[in-house]
Amino acid sequence: MVETITLYTAKASPFAQRVELALEESGAKYETFQVDLRNKPEWYAPKVNPASKVPAIAYGGPPVPPSQPSPESTKLAESLILLEFVADLFPTSHLLPKSPVQRAKARFFIDAVSTKFLPKFLGFVVRGKAEGGEALYKAIEELQALIEGKYALGDEWSIADAALTPFLARLELSLRKGFGGFKEGEGTKLLGRLKEGTKFEVFWKYFENVTQRESFKKTFDEDYLVSAYEKRFGNLRAQSEKKTA
Amino acid sequence: MVETITLYTAKASPFAQRVELALEESGAKYETFQVDLRNKPEWYAPKVNPASKVPAIAYGGPPVPPSQPSPESTKLAESLILLEFVADLFPTSHLLPKSPVQRAKARFFIDAVSTKFLPKFLGFVVRGKAEGGEALYKAIEELQALIEGKYALGDEWSIADAALTPFLARLELSLRKGFGGFKEGEGTKLLGRLKEGTKFEVFWKYFENVTQRESFKKTFDEDYLVSAYEKRFGNLRAQSEKKTA
Ligand SMILES: N[C@@H](CCC(=O)N[C@@H](CS)C(=O)NCC(=O)O)C(=O)O
Ligand SMILES: N[C@@H](CCC(=O)N[C@@H](CS)C(=O)NCC(=O)O)C(=O)O
Repeated sequence: MVETITLYTAKASPFAQRVELALEESGAKYETFQVDLRNKPEWYAPKVNPASKVPAIAYGGPPVPPSQPSPESTKLAESLILLEFVADLFPTSHLLPKSPVQRAKARFFIDAVSTKFLPKFLGFVVRGKAEGGEALYKAIEELQALIEGKYALGDEWSIADAALTPFLARLELSLRKGFGGFKEGEGTKLLGRLKEGTKFEVFWKYFENVTQRESFKKTFDEDYLVSAYEKRFGNLRAQSEKKTA
Repeated sequence: MVETITLYTAKASPFAQRVELALEESGAKYETFQVDLRNKPEWYAPKVNPASKVPAIAYGGPPVPPSQPSPESTKLAESLILLEFVADLFPTSHLLPKSPVQRAKARFFIDAVSTKFLPKFLGFVVRGKAEGGEALYKAIEELQALIEGKYALGDEWSIADAALTPFLARLELSLRKGFGGFKEGEGTKLLGRLKEGTKFEVFWKYFENVTQRESFKKTFDEDYLVSAYEKRFGNLRAQSEKKTA
């Protein structure tokens, strides 16, 4: 029996959106609580997640308002662990295939997202490293080589897609609108290189497939992100211009 | 149906021993091939693991000698993915509990091993960082707090134990015998602090529980490691003494 699920999340967080995608795709009933990351409720770390991050899930226990988490529910954190958790709770929803080999491939894809793509994404988009654009370009090339079909594993959407999509959507938005630690103009320049010719055809088709799903549309708020990025990266940009000046 | 399993491994590798432990505990039939990490066969990267690391598994395909891997077998890599793979292949062997919450706890423990314990282990034992002993001491304290009973999750051995044990055994050996990048005497000093009083009682009892299992004894070759460490860390020590001189 699946018990009550409360997801502690934040619209800005790609890690949290991973779990929202999985929950949406699973058909689960769940409640969400938006954590204000700039001003976290004082009960959040002690009662929900000692690491004080989103996402986290409170599972089971008596019915309580999310802002008064019960000590009787199980608290779980870490987005990739929560993806597996949702897949385990809903084994018939195909969040993960049944075949051990296919499951290993999903996890290998997720591992590549964590160890190969994310550091380059953060290096360029968040920290604006000088050589970051080239490194990110190569990481996307490597990632594309792992995409098996319509989705990461082929025909069926899986948690491999949940792990990547929130970051891809933020990447595309950042490059397109020029929000990031990178220098003025470097975002659209990289986007131009990625859109040139047919080299990244598989990647862009994949991007379209994952972002046109209902689960994505329901959990991605572009207007919200734009205004959040205006605050955040406007700042970072000012800093990095000071440093290089 | 479980197909043929060939594990590419190396006695020195803690990552590879993780998978050997899981295979032993699963009761699987499998073949092993020892990869000489200082002189890898030229077919290894192109035909088994492009990352050129152990462990890797060749799964299925026609019966072939491990040194002539068939293109028809599936090649899988990354120790933590292989632990899940073995657990998926043998769902009744209790390598992972059935309950989604308990499975999430196993993965949370494994994540703590990867993100909290391993960097400090490598920092002190391999790289011999100056403040490394203190950082490792604290990491072991944090790790101990996650141990639920006889094993990581309580009464039953699981892949959470497989993920940690090979590193603990190498740590204990390195400290006891003084093999590592750390300064002369720092190993036994840290070991002394860890053995002092009752503070690490849970940890040492856990250490005993995991290392007295048959699966461990069969896959850990102390004599081999001692002679490998003599070559490797003798060297490193000489280097670090030069640097600090
Ligand atoms: N490894 C974590 C990372 C989660 C994370 O970094 N969340 C950020 C938001 S994107 C957060 O909650 N930050 C708040 C803070 O660190 O104070 C996961 O995968 O869930
Ligand atoms: N992330 C990998 C790490 C494996 C790894 O680093 N293996 C080492 C031996 S402990 C190796 O094969 N090194 C050979 C090399 O890098 O050439 C895993 O978890 O399997």
